Amino acid sequence: MTVRFGVLGAGRIGKVHAKAVASNASAKLVAVADAFEKAANDLADAYGCDVRSIEQIEEASDIDAVVICTPTDTHADLIERFVLAGKAVFCEKPIDLDAKRVEQCLAVVEKAGGTLMVGFNRRFDPHFAAVRKAIDDGAIGKVEQVVITSRDPGPPPAEYITRSGGIFRDMTIHDFDMARFLLGAEPVAVTATASVLVDKKIGELGDFDSVSVILETASGQQCVITNSRRATYGYDQRIEVHGSDGMVAAENQRAVSIEVANGKGYTRPPLHDFFMTRYTEAYAAEIAAFVASVTKGAKVSPSGRDGLIALQLADAALKSAKEGKTVRLKG
Amino acid sequence: MTVRFGVLGAGRIGKVHAKAVASNASAKLVAVADAFEKAANDLADAYGCDVRSIEQIEEASDIDAVVICTPTDTHADLIERFVLAGKAVFCEKPIDLDAKRVEQCLAVVEKAGGTLMVGFNRRFDPHFAAVRKAIDDGAIGKVEQVVITSRDPGPPPAEYITRSGGIFRDMTIHDFDMARFLLGAEPVAVTATASVLVDKKIGELGDFDSVSVILETASGQQCVITNSRRATYGYDQRIEVHGSDGMVAAENQRAVSIEVANGKGYTRPPLHDFFMTRYTEAYAAEIAAFVASVTKGAKVSPSGRDGLIALQLADAALKSAKEGKTVRLKG
Amino acid sequence: MTVRFGVLGAGRIGKVHAKAVASNASAKLVAVADAFEKAANDLADAYGCDVRSIEQIEEASDIDAVVICTPTDTHADLIERFVLAGKAVFCEKPIDLDAKRVEQCLAVVEKAGGTLMVGFNRRFDPHFAAVRKAIDDGAIGKVEQVVITSRDPGPPPAEYITRSGGIFRDMTIHDFDMARFLLGAEPVAVTATASVLVDKKIGELGDFDSVSVILETASGQQCVITNSRRATYGYDQRIEVHGSDGMVAAENQRAVSIEVANGKGYTRPPLHDFFMTRYTEAYAAEIAAFVASVTKGAKVSPSGRDGLIALQLADAALKSAKEGKTVRLKG
Amino acid sequence: MTVRFGVLGAGRIGKVHAKAVASNASAKLVAVADAFEKAANDLADAYGCDVRSIEQIEEASDIDAVVICTPTDTHADLIERFVLAGKAVFCEKPIDLDAKRVEQCLAVVEKAGGTLMVGFNRRFDPHFAAVRKAIDDGAIGKVEQVVITSRDPGPPPAEYITRSGGIFRDMTIHDFDMARFLLGAEPVAVTATASVLVDKKIGELGDFDSVSVILETASGQQCVITNSRRATYGYDQRIEVHGSDGMVAAENQRAVSIEVANGKGYTRPPLHDFFMTRYTEAYAAEIAAFVASVTKGAKVSPSGRDGLIALQLADAALKSAKEGKTVRLKG
Repeated sequence: MTVRFGVLGAGRIGKVHAKAVASNASAKLVAVADAFEKAANDLADAYGCDVRSIEQIEEASDIDAVVICTPTDTHADLIERFVLAGKAVFCEKPIDLDAKRVEQCLAVVEKAGGTLMVGFNRRFDPHFAAVRKAIDDGAIGKVEQVVITSRDPGPPPAEYITRSGGIFRDMTIHDFDMARFLLGAEPVAVTATASVLVDKKIGELGDFDSVSVILETASGQQCVITNSRRATYGYDQRIEVHGSDGMVAAENQRAVSIEVANGKGYTRPPLHDFFMTRYTEAYAAEIAAFVASVTKGAKVSPSGRDGLIALQLADAALKSAKEGKTVRLKG
Repeated sequence: MTVRFGVLGAGRIGKVHAKAVASNASAKLVAVADAFEKAANDLADAYGCDVRSIEQIEEASDIDAVVICTPTDTHADLIERFVLAGKAVFCEKPIDLDAKRVEQCLAVVEKAGGTLMVGFNRRFDPHFAAVRKAIDDGAIGKVEQVVITSRDPGPPPAEYITRSGGIFRDMTIHDFDMARFLLGAEPVAVTATASVLVDKKIGELGDFDSVSVILETASGQQCVITNSRRATYGYDQRIEVHGSDGMVAAENQRAVSIEVANGKGYTRPPLHDFFMTRYTEAYAAEIAAFVASVTKGAKVSPSGRDGLIALQLADAALKSAKEGKTVRLKG
Repeated sequence: MTVRFGVLGAGRIGKVHAKAVASNASAKLVAVADAFEKAANDLADAYGCDVRSIEQIEEASDIDAVVICTPTDTHADLIERFVLAGKAVFCEKPIDLDAKRVEQCLAVVEKAGGTLMVGFNRRFDPHFAAVRKAIDDGAIGKVEQVVITSRDPGPPPAEYITRSGGIFRDMTIHDFDMARFLLGAEPVAVTATASVLVDKKIGELGDFDSVSVILETASGQQCVITNSRRATYGYDQRIEVHGSDGMVAAENQRAVSIEVANGKGYTRPPLHDFFMTRYTEAYAAEIAAFVASVTKGAKVSPSGRDGLIALQLADAALKSAKEGKTVRLKG
Repeated sequence: MTVRFGVLGAGRIGKVHAKAVASNASAKLVAVADAFEKAANDLADAYGCDVRSIEQIEEASDIDAVVICTPTDTHADLIERFVLAGKAVFCEKPIDLDAKRVEQCLAVVEKAGGTLMVGFNRRFDPHFAAVRKAIDDGAIGKVEQVVITSRDPGPPPAEYITRSGGIFRDMTIHDFDMARFLLGAEPVAVTATASVLVDKKIGELGDFDSVSVILETASGQQCVITNSRRATYGYDQRIEVHGSDGMVAAENQRAVSIEVANGKGYTRPPLHDFFMTRYTEAYAAEIAAFVASVTKGAKVSPSGRDGLIALQLADAALKSAKEGKTVRLKG
C-alpha cells in the first residue's frame, strides 16, 4: 500500500517533509498547497506533483494523509479540519502555543477517531534512537539521570521571537520531549533558570536566550537541560543517559570528520550548521514511521498527547523561571 | 540539461548506481539492461524505467550516457561499443585486468574523442574529499608521507578470488588511486609484501589476503598502504597525509556514533559493515560529478588513464611481492 | 628557601599530602603526627621524617607550615591553634561542616594575620587549570554557562555518610568551588533537586545520592552541576564552559588510553578508579602552590573564605532541595 | 633489598635516569660521574649523592649497579668494564653502532655471566605495555599486522646526525624493537624506503629524514613503520596491532587534554613536545623493572641480544633502502 500525501505549506520545513515523502518508497507526494503561489509551484515542479488549494486537498479522494507545515497559529484548525475530512495528519510541532487550545484540538481528534502524529523529529535521529534502543536493551540498567545539551548556532530574528511563544515553547520543547523519551516516565517537577546573555533584544521582547532546567519524575529520576541561542562552533545536540549499570551518550555530528594537526593543535571542523543538515536522516525516518503506522493502521508516536505534555512542561518551566520556585505537575 | 542514462548490469553495484542516477536532479534513469531478466525487471520497477537490451540502449536516441556495471571481463568491450555509439561512459573499475587490453581500449576511446570516467568512488567520499581540499588549501604544506589503511570486514568467497585478478588488482587498486589522489604526483617505485594470514584457501588459489606496500615518487614522497581481508570491527578505511606544515586525516565512519560506558569500559559500535553502507554518499557524489562533467562538456575525472595507472601499480606491486625487490615505473 | 612541614593525620589523604611535600624540591617533610601510632610510624619510615605529637609540632621551631588531614571535626580547632602558633596552614576541605564555626575560625585567622589555604585540589588539576587559563586567554569570550559533571564510582560506607555532612557539603562542595573558579563571579541563586536512586541506606540516613543543581550569578550566568554516587565506568569528572565566543571543555582521564576493536565495537578502558589516581598531579601542584605562596609571602588561594562560600552554597542547595524553591544568596 | 646505583654520564638522559633511580623506593643513587665537573656536581646536588670518577665507581663496594648514559662510542667498553667489575649494567641504547662490536661485547658479558639490560624505554610506556598485555590476554587473537608511527617534532642538529649512525640506527631502532615486542616473532625480511624531505643538510651528511619500512616474519606477519624527523603538532608516537580477532591501538599523548570549540572548529592542544615529557612514566618503569630483576636475580629484558637484533634490523633497512631490494635475515 502506498500512502498518498498532500503537503500544506511549502516553506523551509515544508520542503524538508516534501522531500521525505517523495523519497519514501511507500509514499507518494500528490499535491502541495501554499498561500504563496511561487513557493507551491517550485516545490511541485521539484517533485512532479500538483499544486492545489487547502480546500481541494481536504476534499481530494486521491489523498490519504497530510503534512501540516503552515504557520503555527493555523495548526490546530487544520488538524481538526483534516481529521474530520478523514485524512491521517502529521503536524509539525507545536499543535498550538496555548495548552487549552491543544486540549480542545485533541478532543476533536479523539472524538473523530483520527490519526495525529506530532513532529518531534529528534526521536528519529539514528543516534538518539540508538541511545533509546541501548536503554531498552538493558545496556545501562535503570535510568537515573539524563543530561541534554541543545544549543542553536545563533539567535533567530526578533520577528520570529515574538510569534514563537518564547524559548521554552519553541526550543526547549524539543528537549522536554527528548527527556520524556529517555526517562521513560513523566516529569512531576520542573525547575528552570532563564537569562538573557546572547542578545539584549530578546530580553526586550520578554524572552530569554539561555536557560537551564531540571526535571524530576515521581521516582526521583532527574533530567538536566541546558539551552543557549548561541554556539559559535555549530549546532550542539547531545544527550547522555546515566543508569544503574552504566551510561550511554550520543555525540555531536559534523558533515565531515577530518582532523588537521599542526603547531596550534589538532582541529576538527565545526558541527552541522543547524537542524536542516543535522537532522536530515531524522526527518526521513520520521515520515517513514508515520507512513508505516498509517499503512498498518497502528498507533502513531509521538502522538498529539506527547505534543501537549511537552507544551505543559514548557509552560511550567516558564512559570518556574519567573517565580523562582519548582513547579509541580500531575505527571 | 538532464543527462539521460542507461544502466548496464542490475547486480549489487548496478543498483547502487541506478539509485544514484534516479536521485540526481540533473539525471534521468531511462533504461536498465541485465542478462538476468528478473534483476533487470526489479530494478526497473523500483525506479519506473524501461528494461532494454544492451543493443537497444546502444542504439537509443533517448539515452546520453551509460553506467557499466557488468562483469569485469565485459568492461573493455562495452566501453568501446558505447563510446563508438556516442554515449558518455561511466565504467566501474577496473576497465580490464590486463593492462595491455586497457591500453587498447583507451586508444579506441581517445580516437573516438569519447568520454570515459572510471569508478574510483573513494575520491568522492566527503571525508576523503575534504582531506584533498585541506591539502589544496595549504593546511599541511607540501605533502611528504601518506598512510592508507584499508581492511575489508571479511574475505570474499573463493569463487570471487579466481576472477578478481588478485588482491592487488581488486582491492589495493583503490588505495593506489587514493595514493595518487593524495600525493599529487606519480609513484615511480613500488615495493610490496604479501602474505596469506586470513584464509588458506586464498593462498591455494595463488592470491594473498594481507599486504603492505610502499610507494615512492620522484621527489621522494612516500605512501604506505596496509590491506587485509579481515577486520572483525567493520570496514576500516582511513587516510592520513603528512606534510611540511602538518597532518590531515580522515577517521573511520560508523552508522551510529553512540558510546556505552560501564565496568568494562567505553564502547562505541563497530564501523560500517562494508562499502555499500560506508560509501553511500560517495556513490551519489561520483555520479553527480559525472553528470556535471557531461552537462558542461568538461573533462571527466578520474579518467580511463587513472584506471590504467592504478592497474599498472597493482601489477608492479604483485611483481615486487613475488620477486622481493622494488619495482621501478616510468612515473 | 625551603618550607619545613609537619603533616597532621597519616590516613589516606595524609599520605597523599606527605608524598607531595616529600617530592617538592622547595619543601621538607620534618614530622608527621597521628593518634594511631602505627600509621604515623609507617608514614615517617616511608619518607625518613620524625613522628611527633600535635603539641610538639605546634611548638617546633624547625617547622614552618602544617598540612591538616585529621578528621573534619578537628579542622577548625587545629587551624586556630596552628595559626596562633605562627605556622602557615594548609587544611583539607572542609574547615567545618557548620558555616558559623567556619566564620569564627576565619575571624581568628584574620585577626592573627595567619595564612590559611583550603584544599580544593581540583583547581590544580592540569586539565581543569588549562580550562581556566583558556578562559583567561580569551579563548571563549565572556563566560555564560558552565556544566560540571561529577560522579563517584560508588557510594561511601554508611558510616561515612553520617559524619560527612551530606552529599552537598561533602561531594558537591568541590563542584561549587569549581563553579566559582570557572564562572569568575559569585552565585546569587541556588536551585537543587536531590534523590535517592543508588542506595536506600543513604536515604534512611537522611542524605541523597543523586543531585542536580543550577547556580546563577547576578549577571545571569548559569552553572549546572550533576552528581551521583554511582558510575560503573569509573570516576567521572568533566567540566565544560560556554562563552560568548566558544566553548572549552576538559575530558575525562584514564590510566591507559588504549582501544580494542572487535565485533562488539571499539572499547577504551574505564576511567581512573577514584580521586587518588585521578588527581595525583593536582595534589602535587596544590602543595607546590602553597609552598610557593608561603615562600614569597604571597596570598594563598583558595583561601579560607573560598572554603566558607562553597559551604554556604552547599547549605543553600540543601535548603533548596528540601523546600522546592530557589534560594537566594547575597553573592 | 635496595639496589645501590652509580650513574655514568650526567647529561640529558643521565638526569632522567638519575631521577628514576632516586625516586625508586628499592633503589639508592650513590654516585654520579661525568667528564664535565659541573654537570656531575649539579646532578649530585639535586639528589644528595656523591660525585665520583668512573674508576671509583668501578671499584666501589657500595655500588651494585650502573646506568650508562655516556656518549655512544663509550658504551661497549664501559659495559665490559662494569660487567667484569661485577656490577649489574643498564645501558642506554645503542650498545654500539657497529653490530660486530656489539657481538664482541655481548660475548664478554655472557662469558662473565653478567647482567646487561638495554634501554628500550618504550616497552615500559604504560600505554604500549597495555597493548602488549591486551595481546597476551588474547584480546585480538593471533597477531597479523603491526603499524608503528614515530615522528619527531623536528630534526636534530647536523652535528648529532654525524655521530648518530643515521636515522635507522638512531630513530627507527626504537621501532624495530617495538615491532619485535609486538609481533612476538623475529622479522626475516626488511624492506625500506628512505628520502630527504625535511632538511637538505641531513641528505648532504648522507642520512635520510623520512623513511618507511616493512618487516615480515617467517609466518608472514607484517609490520609497517613510518618515520619522519618532522611533526609540527608534537611527538607522534602510535602503535596499532591487528590480529585474527580484532585490533588494539595506543593513541598519542598530550600534557593537557582540553578542547576549545569555536567558529574554526574543535581544537585540542598539540602532543607532548618530545621523549622527555612523553616517556616520563616509561623511564621510571624501566628502571623499576631493572631494579626488580636485579633484586630477584631474574633475567633482564630487553637484553643485550635485543639491542643487537634491533641494530641488525637497522643495518638491513639501510642496505634495503640503498639497494632497492628486500634484505633477508636469519630471524
